[in-house]
Amino acid sequence: MAGATPMAATTPVNVYGPPLSTAVSRVLACLLEKDAPFQLIPVNMAKGEHKSPDYLKIQPFGQVPAFQDQSINLFESRAICRYVCDQYASQGYRGLYGTNPLVKASIDQWIEAEGQSFSPPSSLLVFQLVFAPRMKIKQDENVINQNVEKLSKVLDVYEKRLGESRFLAGDEFTLADLSHLPNAQYLVNGTDKGELFNARKNVARWWDEISTRDSWKKVVEMQNSPPA
Amino acid sequence: MAGATPMAATTPVNVYGPPLSTAVSRVLACLLEKDAPFQLIPVNMAKGEHKSPDYLKIQPFGQVPAFQDQSINLFESRAICRYVCDQYASQGYRGLYGTNPLVKASIDQWIEAEGQSFSPPSSLLVFQLVFAPRMKIKQDENVINQNVEKLSKVLDVYEKRLGESRFLAGDEFTLADLSHLPNAQYLVNGTDKGELFNARKNVARWWDEISTRDSWKKVVEMQNSPPA
Repeated sequence: MAGATPMAATTPVNVYGPPLSTAVSRVLACLLEKDAPFQLIPVNMAKGEHKSPDYLKIQPFGQVPAFQDQSINLFESRAICRYVCDQYASQGYRGLYGTNPLVKASIDQWIEAEGQSFSPPSSLLVFQLVFAPRMKIKQDENVINQNVEKLSKVLDVYEKRLGESRFLAGDEFTLADLSHLPNAQYLVNGTDKGELFNARKNVARWWDEISTRDSWKKVVEMQNSPPA
Repeated sequence: MAGATPMAATTPVNVYGPPLSTAVSRVLACLLEKDAPFQLIPVNMAKGEHKSPDYLKIQPFGQVPAFQDQSINLFESRAICRYVCDQYASQGYRGLYGTNPLVKASIDQWIEAEGQSFSPPSSLLVFQLVFAPRMKIKQDENVINQNVEKLSKVLDVYEKRLGESRFLAGDEFTLADLSHLPNAQYLVNGTDKGELFNARKNVARWWDEISTRDSWKKVVEMQNSPPA
């Protein structure tokens, strides 16, 4: 869908938040796939900047990311990605959000599967296994075990699906695949739970293909660069 | 967006699952808003029909609802609703998924807020307070208290938003509002937690307006009718 007020391709959009945040990095990956220029605006969460009155005006839940262009302020990473795909439909990787209604419906279905089934256990595992140690918070073994089990069941469904099609929504890489990158990156490369992905043949093949795209490699570089 | 293969308005689509399911009732409300003919196909979850091989072919996670028309099988209620809005764009209530990209982005944002912020605590509360007693499962007071607190914080954000605009995504009723109806219905009318909504002036006004639409009243009738 073309935008009502198409952006000049050179006008950067603003993204608020640190690239280490899974939701921020989802938006960055999408912007890079669409060759959409952006500037990243730091939000110092350790200092509580995400709860400041000015920030709450653009993100009322006090979370990251927030997004801003000349036409709109938005929050919620998956909604921002949909908007970016619509707004930059004719540039960058054009298949990201599909080019016909049936493909788009399949993409929406797997974005929802990510948001409703994959993300809850994987986000809890990323918190427990990656962020809790950095924040000197005690890990909860029960939460870890329960969510490994939940995520395993989800990945069993993915394994079957990815035996039938190259990517989740069909034979092309889409926003549905991209949406999984942030949590999967931490689990595969930052924890001892990578086998959840690597021991499943089709999931491993898929993960290898989606995580080596230039866009995602660039996001991982941003995550590993010390803030300026 | 017009469909690639627009449905004849008289060809009913299939929806699998019981109207008492919150996800099924979300889809039913959407179909009724769009005047889209449908037939409801029972899935006997007590007998495990949602885990049968035939059902898993159309809903690989073994959940309800599943959706089927002449062109596509879909799961995930919010993805089904988006598809129905696109497919039946020119009939029923036309503003349900917006008519320009900026409104659509705002609707997507608040559908995600529902799916990521409102739904997790409200679904857990509906299970604990409504379904656990019916299924003779012991309620967990900790889960109830934690999720009342989480939902209260979410509804504080809604209270502020609904002081600025009549509905979540703007001045018109949309899929973003509709998406809240199933869980809110149980909490307001089937538990002692209705004050979470009724004690907040703007949320109460909004709830009153969205829950009295003809489409939703019809869904509640279907929920209260004994299965044929």
